[in-house]
Amino acid sequence: MTASPDINAERLWADIMTMGAIGATEGGGSFRPALSDADREGRNLFRYWAQEAGLTVTVDEIGNMFARREGEDPSLPPLMIGSHLDTQMPGGKFDGVLGVLAGLAVVRSLNAGGIATRRAIEIVNFTNEEGARFQPGIMGSSVFAGLSRLDEALSRKDDEGTLLGDELVRIGYAGSRPVGGRPVHKYLELHIEQGPEMEAAGVTIAAVSNSSWGCSGFIDIKGENGHSQTAPMSKRRNALVAAAQLIIEIEAIGAENEPDGMVSATVIRNWPNNRVNIPHLTKLSYVVVHATEPGRASIISRIESAVKRIADETGLSIHNANSHYRQRLDLSSELCGQVLEAAADRGYPSMTLPTLTSHDALSMTQICPTAIIFVPCKGGISHSEKEWCEPYQVAAGARVLLDMTLKIANEL
Amino acid sequence: MTASPDINAERLWADIMTMGAIGATEGGGSFRPALSDADREGRNLFRYWAQEAGLTVTVDEIGNMFARREGEDPSLPPLMIGSHLDTQMPGGKFDGVLGVLAGLAVVRSLNAGGIATRRAIEIVNFTNEEGARFQPGIMGSSVFAGLSRLDEALSRKDDEGTLLGDELVRIGYAGSRPVGGRPVHKYLELHIEQGPEMEAAGVTIAAVSNSSWGCSGFIDIKGENGHSQTAPMSKRRNALVAAAQLIIEIEAIGAENEPDGMVSATVIRNWPNNRVNIPHLTKLSYVVVHATEPGRASIISRIESAVKRIADETGLSIHNANSHYRQRLDLSSELCGQVLEAAADRGYPSMTLPTLTSHDALSMTQICPTAIIFVPCKGGISHSEKEWCEPYQVAAGARVLLDMTLKIANEL
Ligand SMILES: [Zn+2]
Ligand SMILES: [Zn+2]
Repeated sequence: MTASPDINAERLWADIMTMGAIGATEGGGSFRPALSDADREGRNLFRYWAQEAGLTVTVDEIGNMFARREGEDPSLPPLMIGSHLDTQMPGGKFDGVLGVLAGLAVVRSLNAGGIATRRAIEIVNFTNEEGARFQPGIMGSSVFAGLSRLDEALSRKDDEGTLLGDELVRIGYAGSRPVGGRPVHKYLELHIEQGPEMEAAGVTIAAVSNSSWGCSGFIDIKGENGHSQTAPMSKRRNALVAAAQLIIEIEAIGAENEPDGMVSATVIRNWPNNRVNIPHLTKLSYVVVHATEPGRASIISRIESAVKRIADETGLSIHNANSHYRQRLDLSSELCGQVLEAAADRGYPSMTLPTLTSHDALSMTQICPTAIIFVPCKGGISHSEKEWCEPYQVAAGARVLLDMTLKIANEL
Repeated sequence: MTASPDINAERLWADIMTMGAIGATEGGGSFRPALSDADREGRNLFRYWAQEAGLTVTVDEIGNMFARREGEDPSLPPLMIGSHLDTQMPGGKFDGVLGVLAGLAVVRSLNAGGIATRRAIEIVNFTNEEGARFQPGIMGSSVFAGLSRLDEALSRKDDEGTLLGDELVRIGYAGSRPVGGRPVHKYLELHIEQGPEMEAAGVTIAAVSNSSWGCSGFIDIKGENGHSQTAPMSKRRNALVAAAQLIIEIEAIGAENEPDGMVSATVIRNWPNNRVNIPHLTKLSYVVVHATEPGRASIISRIESAVKRIADETGLSIHNANSHYRQRLDLSSELCGQVLEAAADRGYPSMTLPTLTSHDALSMTQICPTAIIFVPCKGGISHSEKEWCEPYQVAAGARVLLDMTLKIANEL
């Protein structure tokens, strides 16, 4: 083996900024929801860069992209490194993008050093992690890991009723390769933290130990239509007013659960939603996350109580339903230890952390040992045009990824 | 003149129910927003019935329909009777429909009695009174009365960006007749009250004395995007939570102004409106009505105070703007007296009332003496699938309209 290689931090940073320019928004973020024109341009760019680095790019039937650097023994299952290039509407420059482009940076370092590895390395861009345009998110990795079905994913529709499968064809990423069903040696995902803990602790690297307990909630409030300029105030059955009370209650329940849990109502739809009519139907939805299962149960039960009380007070029919339950998943403790070791070797302060939100890596835990490496994001802000990670933090994450790759890709 | 004619109340009721079946909803209402397919069907039916009654139907460039029964002296300006056939989404069976179809019932009575009138009678269906799909409402009558411009009306877009002018062509009601610019002798509009006063007073007929002071309000709340599963609760700048506080405040301000004034927030839009993002922008809108100008000013100033206080408390940027100011307009006091007289002659208990909401008749006050005749609606409920007017009330309104027509259409 030649001298220990380094990451080309300037090139990696330039790549992240360039990718951010695809679907750039005025506020400094990116608007590249899955299967949009901008997603296609982002994918094309990734494919170009991968081929430039000598990788072979294949696409599977859900549009997941794999850029493969062959190993000395092609028969061994590959080390996979990746994340996603799609964004929220709008999202930031780092969420997902970092994990994919840092994978390319690792491969370029190996190329520059003339370093071969026993196992192949595949850089993956999973389709539709964000679920911004087509729900649910974590889609490509979930089908890849056999946790959800290809035909169901392809038949999802966006708000305009457009089929995901049709959009995949339209943007040229309906690949021919079967989705998953093949062994993966290990999976590594570098990602921004999306919370404030690392910044507060002053560390550069975190190894993610486990995920959280989560679920989604959907509230339907039935009021009664009426004329907003003539119906007596005292007789109005305004669904939007009850929704407003619930939004405030839910926010308060979230605040009381800080820092272990959180919940905000973030989605509202209101009918008929015009100025001359009293709303007869308002729908809310929210996501609950909590570090513990009883904590999640307590948030749900407090929301249920608020629903009952407000239904009683207003006389409206209000219904709450919870679904999309997510249980705590553990990342590989062995890989977690290796992340901390690699950070220590490079002299980066580090910690272990749970993740509150979901990642493609959580799908991968079901088929192979998996690690998530966090770097900080400024102010804990993400899913935002203001999302930011300092260049030295980006480089640190990529270096840890490189060191782990050198070890894992040479494992028997 | 032959013996005093009566209304065919059964036929009128059947017509109202038949019109209600065009765009019928499961909840018992109708969904016939202006320039929809259902609006076309409703218009076609009206044209058929008008021609069946021997009337000549013309359509002007904004789609207003005029069904004319010629007078003995065709050179005299006609008596116009009408309202609108479009509905809210959904709306009820009576709002607007009653005024148009009662006009047809009056003409049929004259036909049955072989009664000619000195002046022509024109039954009018004004385009887009409701403003449900294309804003603003009161559109056809407003252009007819010279209060707004034809080209501006034709260039209005619905939420999907479809042009009103294109839709008018599509449904076959882009007429060739110039809009307005011709004298009208008087205008009569029979309408359901849309409030609870007549039911409470136990009367069958009301003569409308005047309209109210009104305006619309638009509130923009700027929060900050963020990840709903990771951002600390205490740092969230959730625009939807501030919107919720304002919805509740506005409802309380409305309640304190009962019965002279009212206001509810009834429209909300929220961005990005998905479960994984904290809303960074929420917009509200509302309509204010009040019997007096100082009352309207007081409601606006109370809302402004609430906006300032909630902006201070939350640290969010919140902006309120008011527009679409509507001043009090007086209906013809002479015609108002004639409504009460006609009701007394028929033995119907009656009263005078202001109207809180707008009507096509308010446009017509600007070009000719105008009357609005109210009949009650059950529970004061309108803009609702539950909108209801009893058959005897419908018939009473049509009889008052008939008696006034016999007098006015024979005026010199
Ligand atoms: Zn992500
Ligand atoms: Zn109406």
